[in-house]
Amino acid sequence: MLKKAQKPSKKASAKPFNKVAVIGVGLIGASLALALRERKLANKIVAGDKNAKHCALALRKKIADEATTNLARVVKDADLVVLCTPVASMGAVAKVIAPSLKKGAILSDVGSVKQAVVEGVGPHVPRGVHFVPAHPIAGTEHSGPLAGRADLFEGRWCIITPVRGGDAKAAQKLTKLWEKLGSRIKRMDAKHHDRVLAITSHLPHLIAYTIVSTASDLGTHLKDEVIRFSASGFRDFTRVAASDPVMWRDVFLNNREAVLEIIQRFSEDLTALQRNIRWGEGDKLFKLFSQSRAIRKAVLDQKQDTNEPMSKRKP
Amino acid sequence: MLKKAQKPSKKASAKPFNKVAVIGVGLIGASLALALRERKLANKIVAGDKNAKHCALALRKKIADEATTNLARVVKDADLVVLCTPVASMGAVAKVIAPSLKKGAILSDVGSVKQAVVEGVGPHVPRGVHFVPAHPIAGTEHSGPLAGRADLFEGRWCIITPVRGGDAKAAQKLTKLWEKLGSRIKRMDAKHHDRVLAITSHLPHLIAYTIVSTASDLGTHLKDEVIRFSASGFRDFTRVAASDPVMWRDVFLNNREAVLEIIQRFSEDLTALQRNIRWGEGDKLFKLFSQSRAIRKAVLDQKQDTNEPMSKRKP
Repeated sequence: MLKKAQKPSKKASAKPFNKVAVIGVGLIGASLALALRERKLANKIVAGDKNAKHCALALRKKIADEATTNLARVVKDADLVVLCTPVASMGAVAKVIAPSLKKGAILSDVGSVKQAVVEGVGPHVPRGVHFVPAHPIAGTEHSGPLAGRADLFEGRWCIITPVRGGDAKAAQKLTKLWEKLGSRIKRMDAKHHDRVLAITSHLPHLIAYTIVSTASDLGTHLKDEVIRFSASGFRDFTRVAASDPVMWRDVFLNNREAVLEIIQRFSEDLTALQRNIRWGEGDKLFKLFSQSRAIRKAVLDQKQDTNEPMSKRKP
Repeated sequence: MLKKAQKPSKKASAKPFNKVAVIGVGLIGASLALALRERKLANKIVAGDKNAKHCALALRKKIADEATTNLARVVKDADLVVLCTPVASMGAVAKVIAPSLKKGAILSDVGSVKQAVVEGVGPHVPRGVHFVPAHPIAGTEHSGPLAGRADLFEGRWCIITPVRGGDAKAAQKLTKLWEKLGSRIKRMDAKHHDRVLAITSHLPHLIAYTIVSTASDLGTHLKDEVIRFSASGFRDFTRVAASDPVMWRDVFLNNREAVLEIIQRFSEDLTALQRNIRWGEGDKLFKLFSQSRAIRKAVLDQKQDTNEPMSKRKP
């Protein structure tokens, strides 16, 4: 009789988390909730979002079991709370939910910058709650709850940046969760993460925004033709530049130092190329263009999970 | 009896061209030859290339019926000669082949810049030969004869930039040929073409080369991580920056004025963004990032033939 009664509870405890709270139901938050459900990694998945429309969508689309704009309430009894809001708001969100966090809970995030999140969230984390910052490198140019997809993290990197003196078991538990979501894990220092991402992600996005902005300032006739003949290269940039404006504003403002440093280097390199073109230095252009192929080869040799840009991965 | 004898000749004359000579068997030249054959648009397709290896490959892979390094010989009796060499060499090639061109022949090209080609080739065109410059906007990051593919031009734009006082019938005949290759046609002034392409194609390629160059100058450890985590945006740039170095060197040197003007505008816009980031002007970043979405929407509304970047179109 005792055994029988325990069975459902045993089954329940087989899931790594009982209750997971996702705060912020955008592309990443919705995808995380959907992935947790599909892979049966939590008994209960709840969502908090200050936007009531997002909450309604989260319920209607069965993204979460519960959804509310009351963030303090939604994290109650949660074993895992994941902040999926724009990075600039994470400190304020942490402050609001801190008193309601369960002792022993893991608090994590999905922010694209890590030092600013550690500095913004860290001071609010109550004693007994384990803060483990993380960054799943995944996304599409679409945003909002409806852009969510359960397979978003499959084959993607998730970078975990444990805080100094943090709980090793909690970091391990979060690592396993992301592995179960299909991601490949790399641990890294937060500052180093921010430097690497400044180059691989933040600068490319900034450049894409810039080139689209340059084109949109052209006279109407020229602009129309740029749009018409965009397939010759420009089109790929417009895709990148269609990403969520709030998210990217926060990324640039919160990884200011690393981004400004890499823009400076990029500008110097562009100026050098500009000079090569002006003075007709074909040998220098040829040498530099030839070297680029070596980097492309190295990227392909990495055999990343996909040969396709994210645009192919329709939400 | 007369009718019977005429039949084969009638069949032959049904093809728009009897003999077509393709000069330069790279990605575009090989693709053009393959497309002409597949669509039965010429009775005989011959190739000229100063590189003997390319000639051997053109024969072995049945890209052309004949292939030779003797450019003057290969154009003899051709009704259509298409220059598919890097743009900087087109003037010199035109000079070599000019005395051998058949009276009434059409001379065309596929160069990515048009003013420099008109200026380089124009003076060598013999009286009675009709020069019709063209630019099929198609390509992949691969180069050489083996990268050729018969469907490269399907659904792509081909921009035709007729010269002043040129033969209208010849321009019409070339237009029809590209239509039969599956392309959409737009006629344009050469100078205007160069301005449009400077933005849609030349600047994006230059930016991609620059960002890959910036990354390759990083310390080894950081560079390795950039390559490893390239999927977050950088990867798309490495693809663009893997394009043919000779072709792109020539494009930049031969569209110098338009490219330098657009780099200047781009640099100003980047500097403005850099300043917004440095001074924490989030409202300005948000506004600019939001505007980008409008351009993306306009590009998608154009319903270009493919939603996929060219990387998906494997050779």
